[in-house]
Amino acid sequence: MTPEEFRQAGYAVVDWIADYWATVAERPVTSQDRPGTVAAGLPTAAPAEGEPVESVLADLDKLVAPGLTHWQHPGFFGYFPANTSGPSVLGDLVSAGLGVQGMLWATGPACTELETVMLDWLAQALDLPARFRSTGTGGGVIQDSASSATLVATLVALHRAGGGRWREVGVDRRYRVYASTEAHSSIEKAARIAGLGVDGVRLIEVDPVTRAMSPAALRAAIEADRAAGVVPALVVATVGTTSTTAIDPLPQIGPICAEHRVFLHVDAAYAGAAAICPELRFGHAGLEYADSYCFDPHKWLLTGFDCDAFWVADAAELVQALTVLPEYLRNAATESGAVIDYRDWQVPLGRRFRALKLWFVLRWYGVEGLRAHIRHGVALAARFADRVRADNRFELVAPHPYSLVCFRLRGPDGPNERLLAAVNSTGRVYLTHTRVAGRHTLRLAVGAPQTTETHVDEAWELISQAAALAD
Amino acid sequence: MTPEEFRQAGYAVVDWIADYWATVAERPVTSQDRPGTVAAGLPTAAPAEGEPVESVLADLDKLVAPGLTHWQHPGFFGYFPANTSGPSVLGDLVSAGLGVQGMLWATGPACTELETVMLDWLAQALDLPARFRSTGTGGGVIQDSASSATLVATLVALHRAGGGRWREVGVDRRYRVYASTEAHSSIEKAARIAGLGVDGVRLIEVDPVTRAMSPAALRAAIEADRAAGVVPALVVATVGTTSTTAIDPLPQIGPICAEHRVFLHVDAAYAGAAAICPELRFGHAGLEYADSYCFDPHKWLLTGFDCDAFWVADAAELVQALTVLPEYLRNAATESGAVIDYRDWQVPLGRRFRALKLWFVLRWYGVEGLRAHIRHGVALAARFADRVRADNRFELVAPHPYSLVCFRLRGPDGPNERLLAAVNSTGRVYLTHTRVAGRHTLRLAVGAPQTTETHVDEAWELISQAAALAD
Repeated sequence: MTPEEFRQAGYAVVDWIADYWATVAERPVTSQDRPGTVAAGLPTAAPAEGEPVESVLADLDKLVAPGLTHWQHPGFFGYFPANTSGPSVLGDLVSAGLGVQGMLWATGPACTELETVMLDWLAQALDLPARFRSTGTGGGVIQDSASSATLVATLVALHRAGGGRWREVGVDRRYRVYASTEAHSSIEKAARIAGLGVDGVRLIEVDPVTRAMSPAALRAAIEADRAAGVVPALVVATVGTTSTTAIDPLPQIGPICAEHRVFLHVDAAYAGAAAICPELRFGHAGLEYADSYCFDPHKWLLTGFDCDAFWVADAAELVQALTVLPEYLRNAATESGAVIDYRDWQVPLGRRFRALKLWFVLRWYGVEGLRAHIRHGVALAARFADRVRADNRFELVAPHPYSLVCFRLRGPDGPNERLLAAVNSTGRVYLTHTRVAGRHTLRLAVGAPQTTETHVDEAWELISQAAALAD
Repeated sequence: MTPEEFRQAGYAVVDWIADYWATVAERPVTSQDRPGTVAAGLPTAAPAEGEPVESVLADLDKLVAPGLTHWQHPGFFGYFPANTSGPSVLGDLVSAGLGVQGMLWATGPACTELETVMLDWLAQALDLPARFRSTGTGGGVIQDSASSATLVATLVALHRAGGGRWREVGVDRRYRVYASTEAHSSIEKAARIAGLGVDGVRLIEVDPVTRAMSPAALRAAIEADRAAGVVPALVVATVGTTSTTAIDPLPQIGPICAEHRVFLHVDAAYAGAAAICPELRFGHAGLEYADSYCFDPHKWLLTGFDCDAFWVADAAELVQALTVLPEYLRNAATESGAVIDYRDWQVPLGRRFRALKLWFVLRWYGVEGLRAHIRHGVALAARFADRVRADNRFELVAPHPYSLVCFRLRGPDGPNERLLAAVNSTGRVYLTHTRVAGRHTLRLAVGAPQTTETHVDEAWELISQAAALAD
């Protein structure tokens, strides 16, 4: 494809996306098709000869779009938001066009340096502790996801716990990882990947009301394990759990980790973005105890997936844990020690120029624009929670400090399950569920960029009507 | 940003990329700036208020582009190619615009199904063994990179070796991974991540001429380890090593793995793409023995990073090894067993709609168009190798079955190091180096989409001239 062919086709694709965004609200949020429908519409082999872009775009409309869950739909309230935005898409488009491989500073100096600066910008915008800035011993990096950040933190913790021998001799299965019973499944997955097995994870009980980790239970578990010859290696505390956005109390957890020299990773995948607003920084109290921290601009900060922002307080320790330097990657810049090679900060070797989308987002919206987006989501969630609170049929089952509301019909699970199915089958909204203290609970997570009061009110109307029929 | 604002800014960014591609050959391939130059040109904090896209594009020209290594430059001959193309960029653009999260079938049915079909298309186009097709027990998935594919293969191998106990109790440090001394550093990194440590990897000697793994040495190592109570878990064979594109002999390695029940992963990250041409499938002989296989369309198949295509023969085993199912991800489709949830096929939870760029590439070029691209690269490499062979000052240091030529000035390393530095300092071409049998060796890898005979000839002229001064 020549540059001129790309220019014409590029305009057509830009138009396609602009039109998609302008009309996404008219589509059903989720596909009603049965499994296999999309695959059945596709040929069984690639074409032998090339086809024009128009044919592909026609099939995109005919075959692909009807088979999607529309995460950017204003009625999308499932999981956590995965919001994107025009400037994010443009930054990603530049990245794709440049086709730069940022594994080493030498393979893309601007790719590396813009990333360092963007992570410093974000650290400042969120008022993260100084220890995470690149001007000291710390620094930030973009991971694909919070799962990968958790894995990297796990590996560094094992390296530290192993006293420098982990790299050579492997993992000691007496090491333990601690997280609350409400923590994300990626912690168990990381422990399994790292060779600890599920048995290497201790799930710590939570407060029955706040759903936050009990510091007393954490201390008791660590002390009992130490007494038994088990080695506490890592605590993962969560700011904004996936089920209910509970906030583990860092001011109490941090000193326990410090006392027992346990690596502390803080996973704020969804809720961290809220800290761009000074009044929403409460979850970060005690963050100065953390050895590493992450949040996902790709969840709630208008930056498309994948963009997890991950910081460590000791970058040298991270690099020691992960570096491998074969001859074909040696270069003068690396050997000067004056540059960052981000391949040593992550699991894969290769990496895209993802800092561009952060740069486009931060410059287009500015810090104030992003604050407005966060505050809008929090206000919409509060509006919805007010509706729930005012209706005696329903109960709120957890605090809603951010933009997620957890609620249910009072009483047994069955009607709640039917309510969820009924509401989602309208195609107008999409909610997901969780279990809180064993009870089936509906989750309404606000954050799609086009969601307004109208959409939240419509969601409530649909829920309220369906509730009447769900008993 | 409204859809209309996006439309206008989108045209501008498309123009920027078209102009970049049209003029990239005029830029120096690598930046001549010192470390810190880009960072020094950026503000120390994000702007408080938003700025127009034009300001960002101006800074892209002024600050970022001069600080890049231009991987799409026709004079880029370093590492392996990371080529992209117009249709790949357009597919990625659609993906960014949709902003779909493909972790589960339910979160993006078309995202999942198009990926399954694209991996089947690729398997057919490369004539991979039937065991990897989704129509049987196998199937394919997109990983971000071959490093991650190697890690996933390592985890499945450990799961299998552990007889189903690895998930719970963790890794047994008696497990061993085998690869040749020429294999990629990601194998050691994967073993370290998986908790085996460097000590868990046995590097098997290679044939001194072909640089391919010695099957006799592999057998001897496995038998000695078994006799010593060590458990062989995984062999990673490489088709097209990073240093010299050596091809480990699968027809001999496969039966050894089968006999000792060792998981066999085949890493064809770079060279696998060549198999789209029937006459270049020699490296895949014996692939029917493999439990898993990967290659990178993002290296040499005109598809932008990240796009590693990874197949397994037993998808159920892979899912068993990696699945974690918390309540908030439960859904009817998953529980029906009728769908693929690709989150269980990879390390992270989240995933982008990367199949779109493969779809755009396969349809725009067709299989014949992609064959022409591969054949073009192989012919250019052969042309360059002929120049080297005809000049008595130089020697070819390894076979060049694909599009990488490894060569050096006869004699000591010093002149070769100076030659490489001199040639790269011209800014017209960029080559990297390796060590072959301990000797400093230059690598010229063809594959950037704009590279033609003119550029290869210019590279030779620069090398030939610099050689006269390098002694």
